Amino acid sequence: MTEPSLSVSPADIEAAARTVAPFAVRTPLLSFPVLNSRVGATVFLKPEMLQRTGSFKFRGAFNKLSSIPQAARRGGVVAFSSGNHAQGVAAAAQILNMQATIVMPKDAPLSKRERTKAYGAEVVLYDRDREDREAISRDIATRRGATLVKPYDDPLVIAGQGTAGREIAEDMAALRLAPDIVVAPASGGGLIAGVATAVKARFPQASVIVAEPEAFDDHSRSLRAGQREPHHAEGRTICDALMATIPGELTFAINGKLLSHGVTATDTEVGAAVAFAFRELKLVVEPGGAVGLAALLAGRIDAEGKTVVIVLSGGNVDADLYAKLIA
Amino acid sequence: MTEPSLSVSPADIEAAARTVAPFAVRTPLLSFPVLNSRVGATVFLKPEMLQRTGSFKFRGAFNKLSSIPQAARRGGVVAFSSGNHAQGVAAAAQILNMQATIVMPKDAPLSKRERTKAYGAEVVLYDRDREDREAISRDIATRRGATLVKPYDDPLVIAGQGTAGREIAEDMAALRLAPDIVVAPASGGGLIAGVATAVKARFPQASVIVAEPEAFDDHSRSLRAGQREPHHAEGRTICDALMATIPGELTFAINGKLLSHGVTATDTEVGAAVAFAFRELKLVVEPGGAVGLAALLAGRIDAEGKTVVIVLSGGNVDADLYAKLIA
Repeated sequence: MTEPSLSVSPADIEAAARTVAPFAVRTPLLSFPVLNSRVGATVFLKPEMLQRTGSFKFRGAFNKLSSIPQAARRGGVVAFSSGNHAQGVAAAAQILNMQATIVMPKDAPLSKRERTKAYGAEVVLYDRDREDREAISRDIATRRGATLVKPYDDPLVIAGQGTAGREIAEDMAALRLAPDIVVAPASGGGLIAGVATAVKARFPQASVIVAEPEAFDDHSRSLRAGQREPHHAEGRTICDALMATIPGELTFAINGKLLSHGVTATDTEVGAAVAFAFRELKLVVEPGGAVGLAALLAGRIDAEGKTVVIVLSGGNVDADLYAKLIA
Repeated sequence: MTEPSLSVSPADIEAAARTVAPFAVRTPLLSFPVLNSRVGATVFLKPEMLQRTGSFKFRGAFNKLSSIPQAARRGGVVAFSSGNHAQGVAAAAQILNMQATIVMPKDAPLSKRERTKAYGAEVVLYDRDREDREAISRDIATRRGATLVKPYDDPLVIAGQGTAGREIAEDMAALRLAPDIVVAPASGGGLIAGVATAVKARFPQASVIVAEPEAFDDHSRSLRAGQREPHHAEGRTICDALMATIPGELTFAINGKLLSHGVTATDTEVGAAVAFAFRELKLVVEPGGAVGLAALLAGRIDAEGKTVVIVLSGGNVDADLYAKLIA
C-alpha cells in the first residue's frame, strides 16, 4: 500500500527553485553565538525578512504568476491581503509585466498600502465589517479575466514557499549538519508545508514544528485533533501576518502528515523576541515573523543540545509599533 | 626599487583569519534588489552588525588578544572605548579567559556599559572633561601588568579587521565578480586599512573609498593632503563610533597608499540611511555603521553601472535614538 501522494512534491519545489532563482534573494543561514549560548543549542536562523519585499511571500507569488499562460497574463492578477502576500504578488507582477489588483481592508496600515502601490499594483479598499473580500476579489477576477492568487491553498504557492526550505536543507548539508528541529510560523500554513516537504525529503528524521500566536493556535489544535480545527477563541494578536483562523485544506493535507507538533507564544513573548532580535541579532523582524524565535526564547521548544533551524518569516513592521516593542 | 613594506600584509590577514575563524561569525555578503534599483548599481553589503558583539571590532580584538603570550595573559587587558571596541575586547577576553578592564566615559550610554559588563569586563569610568583616558589606561596597565589593546594603531588589530575584507574578496571571487568600488567607514582607520589590504591583494583594480561623517572628515582631508590631517572643525555627529579626530599613524601609512579617496555624509543623510536599512533592508545599522550606505544613497559615490561593496560596520544603537531615526 502506498500513501496517497501529497499535492506538492520535492520535485515541484526543485522546479520552483529554478523558476524563482533569477529574482528571489537566496537568503543565507545565519548563526549567532549570543543566541546559541542563551538557549544551549546550535541555532541557525533563516532570515526571510531579507527576501525581496521583506518576507518569504515573494517566493510563492512569483512561482504562481510565472505559471500563468501568456494568453491569460493580459488579464492580470488579483489577490486579497493586508500585508506580505500583497507585496509579494505586486512585486512578482511588476517583474512579469502583469497588472496586479490587491484588495485590502480600509484600515490596513498606510505603509503597507503605500508599499503595495510602489510595486505598481492597484489597491482596492473594502470595509472589513460590511464587505466580503473574497467576493470582491472574485468579481474583479471575473470582470477583468484576472487570475486569483490565493495566499496559501495553491500547490504552486506552496512549492514556491518551499524553496526557503530547500535552501535550508542545502545549506545544512554543506555545513555537514543535520537539523534535529526546524521551526516556521503558520497562518494558512503554506510556508511550513513547503518547508516541511523540502526539509524532510533530505532530512527525514528532522522534527518540523509549527509556531503560532497563542490566540491563533489552529495548527497546533488541528495537529492534535488530526483534522482541521479553528483556533480556540476570538483571538487578538500583534502578529498581524498570522491571523488565519483555520489551516488551509491543501496545506493541512501536507502539514498533518509531515509536522511534529505546534508551539505557541504570547504577544508579550513575541514582543520580547522582536526586541531581542533588535538588540542582539540586529535584524528587523515583524511580530508574526518572530513567533518561532519567541517560542525558542521562552523555552517552549526542547532545543537543548540540539541543532535547530528557525525561520524568521518577515520584517514588515511599522516604525511606531517597532519603536514601542524595542523600548 | 621596491616600496617600503607596509606593517600589515595579506599573509598577516590570512593568519588572522585562521585565528578568528573558530569564534568570529563569517558574515555573508547580502544583495537587495530594492537597493540595486535605487542606485542603478550591483551592490553587495557586508553586514558586520551580524558579527559577534554587533560590530567588526571583535575581529581585531580577538586577533590581538590571541597573540598575547600565556605568561602575560594573567595580567589581563585594558582598553579605552565608549563603544564597539569595548565590547570587542571584553568578548575576546571572556573567550580567552582573560580579565578585561575597559575605561569608559561617565556619560557613555548605559546600554553600552551594561553590554560591556555582560561580557565579564570591569568598567572604570572617567570624567571626559577633567581626566585623560589614555593616562588612566596606561596606569592600569602598569599596576596590573595588563596589556593595552589599542583600538586601531596595532598591526594585529588591523589584520583582524582585515578578515572582513578577506571574506569580501573570497565571496566576490566565488560569485565570479570583481568589485569596482569597496566602501568602508573610518574612525581611526583600522577597518578600512585591513579591508583595503585584503581586497586589493585579490582585486588590485578596485577603488577602496573611505566614508566619514561630514564633521569628521579627517581621512578625506588627509588623503587629499597626502599626510595625516585632523578634521576641519570642532565637529558634532550622530556617528558616535566615528569620532577619532585624526587618522592613525600605522593605519594611514596603509590607507595613504591604498585608498582612492574619501566621501562624506551629513547627519541627516546618515539618519536617512539608518531608516532606509530599517524599512527596506530589515537590518539594524548604527549611525556610524551606515555612513557608507548614506554616501551611496546621497549620490556621493560614482556607482552607476558598477559593482559596489559597502561595509556596514556595526549595529549597536540605543533604542530611543533608533526610534527617532526611523520615525
